[in-house]
Amino acid sequence: SPVAMGSGAFTLVLALALVASTTLALQCLLSGSWRSDTGCRMVVSFLSKDGSFSGSYLPGPAAGGSEILTSPLEGTQQDAGLVPQPTFSFTVRWQLRDSETARTTAFLGQCYVGTNGEETLHALWLLREAANSPDEDWKATRIGTSVFTRIK
Amino acid sequence: SPVAMGSGAFTLVLALALVASTTLALQCLLSGSWRSDTGCRMVVSFLSKDGSFSGSYLPGPAAGGSEILTSPLEGTQQDAGLVPQPTFSFTVRWQLRDSETARTTAFLGQCYVGTNGEETLHALWLLREAANSPDEDWKATRIGTSVFTRIK
Amino acid sequence: SPVAMGSGAFTLVLALALVASTTLALQCLLSGSWRSDTGCRMVVSFLSKDGSFSGSYLPGPAAGGSEILTSPLEGTQQDAGLVPQPTFSFTVRWQLRDSETARTTAFLGQCYVGTNGEETLHALWLLREAANSPDEDWKATRIGTSVFTRIK
Amino acid sequence: SPVAMGSGAFTLVLALALVASTTLALQCLLSGSWRSDTGCRMVVSFLSKDGSFSGSYLPGPAAGGSEILTSPLEGTQQDAGLVPQPTFSFTVRWQLRDSETARTTAFLGQCYVGTNGEETLHALWLLREAANSPDEDWKATRIGTSVFTRIK
Repeated sequence: SPVAMGSGAFTLVLALALVASTTLALQCLLSGSWRSDTGCRMVVSFLSKDGSFSGSYLPGPAAGGSEILTSPLEGTQQDAGLVPQPTFSFTVRWQLRDSETARTTAFLGQCYVGTNGEETLHALWLLREAANSPDEDWKATRIGTSVFTRIK
Repeated sequence: SPVAMGSGAFTLVLALALVASTTLALQCLLSGSWRSDTGCRMVVSFLSKDGSFSGSYLPGPAAGGSEILTSPLEGTQQDAGLVPQPTFSFTVRWQLRDSETARTTAFLGQCYVGTNGEETLHALWLLREAANSPDEDWKATRIGTSVFTRIK
Repeated sequence: SPVAMGSGAFTLVLALALVASTTLALQCLLSGSWRSDTGCRMVVSFLSKDGSFSGSYLPGPAAGGSEILTSPLEGTQQDAGLVPQPTFSFTVRWQLRDSETARTTAFLGQCYVGTNGEETLHALWLLREAANSPDEDWKATRIGTSVFTRIK
Repeated sequence: SPVAMGSGAFTLVLALALVASTTLALQCLLSGSWRSDTGCRMVVSFLSKDGSFSGSYLPGPAAGGSEILTSPLEGTQQDAGLVPQPTFSFTVRWQLRDSETARTTAFLGQCYVGTNGEETLHALWLLREAANSPDEDWKATRIGTSVFTRIK
């Protein structure tokens, strides 16, 4: 009947609308603002089609806030826009107020999308300070994890 | 006296020549071909003035040689041409013959120059496979070290 | 006045009682039952005066629950009963139903006590499988973090 | 013929002798003295039948030799005397001359036996310093690798 047909069409439109509204949430993109579980903030301001991105990283209070300045980051996410839960990697080159020692952090992680469409970044990182010689290389690297959620 | 002047000038020229001949060795640049302690080969084919570089990574026999294809790498070295023993980071996106699972390795390290001018790269790396969900994230990441020497 | 005295004495007793009831919470001891953020359970059943302890580890559902059996753990906490937030280390030797490959996890962490007296264990771990040869050693080790809270 | 018999018996004795002389080398035991690739020395002085062991660790010159004292270690090797290339784990509690901060290193590795019977220990380690609070936990842990060879 026309009524049933109308009802079917409405259901279809509704389903399409739901799919559309959740598309962004089901396909994680790194672009935007993120907060880490240690209170750091990360802004990914440019994400190119090939998945490479750039942005800046602002350390939290526990990271020695006054010493560390907003620092640039560069990275890549896997198959931007195609893979729903892409892996990613990025590097932060720390800008320090009073230090000559270079510090770099390399993050490697994956963006997961929850059933509610909420995105979470799980990452392991290595933090290295420049050492003077191979003899001192053994103590140059720290390790840890970070979990980021999107700032809305 | 002219003789003394000549001697002084000669000493200066000799000193400059020595500086010039050791400049490359004392100032590590990532560009070129490297072999890891596990038999992998790495070629850094392009190094820009700002320190970013690209190249390719060829796994060794123990890495499952036939499955893994030559894979692209992207990275950055610290203050190219200014710092004698720069830190660096780069990422390899593995090209696998038969696998749909994304694998990425992030290397973080430093180039050391020996007293004989020989360069050595010391790096720690994280290797991540894509996981299906946060529940399986705990087992996604391997860790290890690599030491690279220049292939002449 | 006697009334005031009584009131003062009561306050003192109350204060002492509060101190006593929070003493245990301010001095973290590993003994007891803990749950990890990935759903694993850990029971530290014996803690000796010198800080060494033993117990068992029960993997969660995401760890391949049916394959892994309850596994023994052995470890040490720093200066048991003297340091309020002791560091600790322990090792789990995994008991697997159907596997000949040895797997061991080494945890290294610290017990923190919150302002509410709640204890939390923060740990990094390395998980190693036996490899056949040094050539395959590079892929033998996984890494991650765990956070444990006390099961009451 | 008697000559042939004699020759056969001699071959058998020779074969047995070879087996006997290589038995120890083919079955790695942690007990003894070891030197790391960074110049540290490790002595495993007691190895019990169940695989648990104890000993001491002497840091090398690059580890801040004068500050760090000989430190006790405790660990376990897998299936002592049964598995030819056992995995192992051990923990060093650092004895520091002038520091109140607790430092612990957890090693996790495997003993490999070369075709020449030479034993090599490959290990990854985590080094943790006590932190004041969970906020500072992120920077508490360093990571690296060590390779040990037997001191003869």
